[in-house]
Amino acid sequence: MRLLRVGAPGEERPAVRTDDGRLLDLSSVTSDIDGAFLAADGVDQARAAVAAGQLPRLEADGLRIGAPVARPGKIVCIGLNYRDHADETGAPIPARPVVFMKDPGTVVGPYDDVRIPRGSVKTDWEVELAVVIGRRARYLDGPDAARDVIAGYAVSHDVSEREFQLEYSSQWDLGKSCETFNPLGPWLVTTDEVGDPQNLGLRLSVNGVKRQDGHTGDMIFPVDHIVSYLSRYMVLEPGDVINTGTPAGVALGLPGTPYLRPGDTVELAVDGLGSQRQTFGQA
Amino acid sequence: MRLLRVGAPGEERPAVRTDDGRLLDLSSVTSDIDGAFLAADGVDQARAAVAAGQLPRLEADGLRIGAPVARPGKIVCIGLNYRDHADETGAPIPARPVVFMKDPGTVVGPYDDVRIPRGSVKTDWEVELAVVIGRRARYLDGPDAARDVIAGYAVSHDVSEREFQLEYSSQWDLGKSCETFNPLGPWLVTTDEVGDPQNLGLRLSVNGVKRQDGHTGDMIFPVDHIVSYLSRYMVLEPGDVINTGTPAGVALGLPGTPYLRPGDTVELAVDGLGSQRQTFGQA
Repeated sequence: MRLLRVGAPGEERPAVRTDDGRLLDLSSVTSDIDGAFLAADGVDQARAAVAAGQLPRLEADGLRIGAPVARPGKIVCIGLNYRDHADETGAPIPARPVVFMKDPGTVVGPYDDVRIPRGSVKTDWEVELAVVIGRRARYLDGPDAARDVIAGYAVSHDVSEREFQLEYSSQWDLGKSCETFNPLGPWLVTTDEVGDPQNLGLRLSVNGVKRQDGHTGDMIFPVDHIVSYLSRYMVLEPGDVINTGTPAGVALGLPGTPYLRPGDTVELAVDGLGSQRQTFGQA
Repeated sequence: MRLLRVGAPGEERPAVRTDDGRLLDLSSVTSDIDGAFLAADGVDQARAAVAAGQLPRLEADGLRIGAPVARPGKIVCIGLNYRDHADETGAPIPARPVVFMKDPGTVVGPYDDVRIPRGSVKTDWEVELAVVIGRRARYLDGPDAARDVIAGYAVSHDVSEREFQLEYSSQWDLGKSCETFNPLGPWLVTTDEVGDPQNLGLRLSVNGVKRQDGHTGDMIFPVDHIVSYLSRYMVLEPGDVINTGTPAGVALGLPGTPYLRPGDTVELAVDGLGSQRQTFGQA
């Protein structure tokens, strides 16, 4: 199933996207798609309501699409999780997942404008597969158990400011947490529909020029390993989001480091999860 | 004014502590002490209600004291912000604030048990001055403007697992985000009552042995500088918490590195902000 949230920022309504592209209003089942909804088997209830034909159609023409989950409790990110991206940044292949965080307030919709921070000259792109947690996870018994706590997946744009991230201190969070730096969506696609999360292509282009063209099969630490690993060090809660890393092709690793400028347009997609498009402006 | 939250986890009631130590029930003014309350001039309303004698007494005998603010949207931490602590860890004095994050789900009450993570042999203590944001802050015009966005201060225990933090990857968040790793409170003390945040002593002892005895005057980056700096890279929202760093005396820097073990008791205090006491158990 494909879940989404449509409407103005802060006023999004929950919806389901059917296989033939119609939107159904999920407001009779839940007030929002958030951690509480996911934890209370909301996906099963939504599925039953769709099957019973109980949901009215939502006329979404011209309506903004928001992020498919309400503000996450936290966003955990895995750095350098594709061999080719580690290579392009000059970093060694990590022996353990490199874990950092992003301000959860950075989440915006998949077509919203992104703001280049004041003073920034190194704003960069990163297409990623996002994992959305559906059940509380604490000290999981390995990767197999991880599958039961994942609600689904979404396209995530882990926008990054490389000077703030890499040059201002040893810690990366500052350059990852700028306003509007995490477009998410358009959909939360449930695990059953995605199948193997290690069998998805990811693509990103800037002003029509292809920049990233990777595959989740090239992750150093696959999704179930990441979720299991994280659960040994922190409690994952329903609605939390994990950005699982980006493949090669970011500006930092390209000849001439073509960082983003106001007016640039970035398009990105992950197989089966839909696509995003953002115009970059100035904060 | 001293604001607090009393009751079982997840069922805390808002309260005010009077100068003579009585607790007044703030439930008629707000359902909780959170970002929305702080943003809507809730402190002024609470003050007016106290002055008018409108608040009933709260019988708090035996009641747990929770964290003084509801789950923060984010916890931002400043690393190596005291010269003597940077020295003891072998790190150079930073030229800019070292910024990292902690899972906001780590917040617990000031007297709650803290859990040593499974597999941990390097769980460490850190007494800190926490800043609680009261107004949205984005691109502030320097340190003077920072004072207007701070609601108040609290004692914060930035519990840290040094192996997870320093040995597993270059990024510290993993060793800062373990379950129960951020006791906060007992009170949120408003700025007017604290006066100069750079004139506060901080102390911490383990099993009765004094380990940290610092002073906020020794911060490399003072509070107003930190808040102004952060606002240039991320949006600070009401209810967000900033841990401003710890002075020397952590286990990592002591002879024999006497890390915490189950059964240990840690007591910590900041001048004017009250004291905490936690017993450490095993997760």
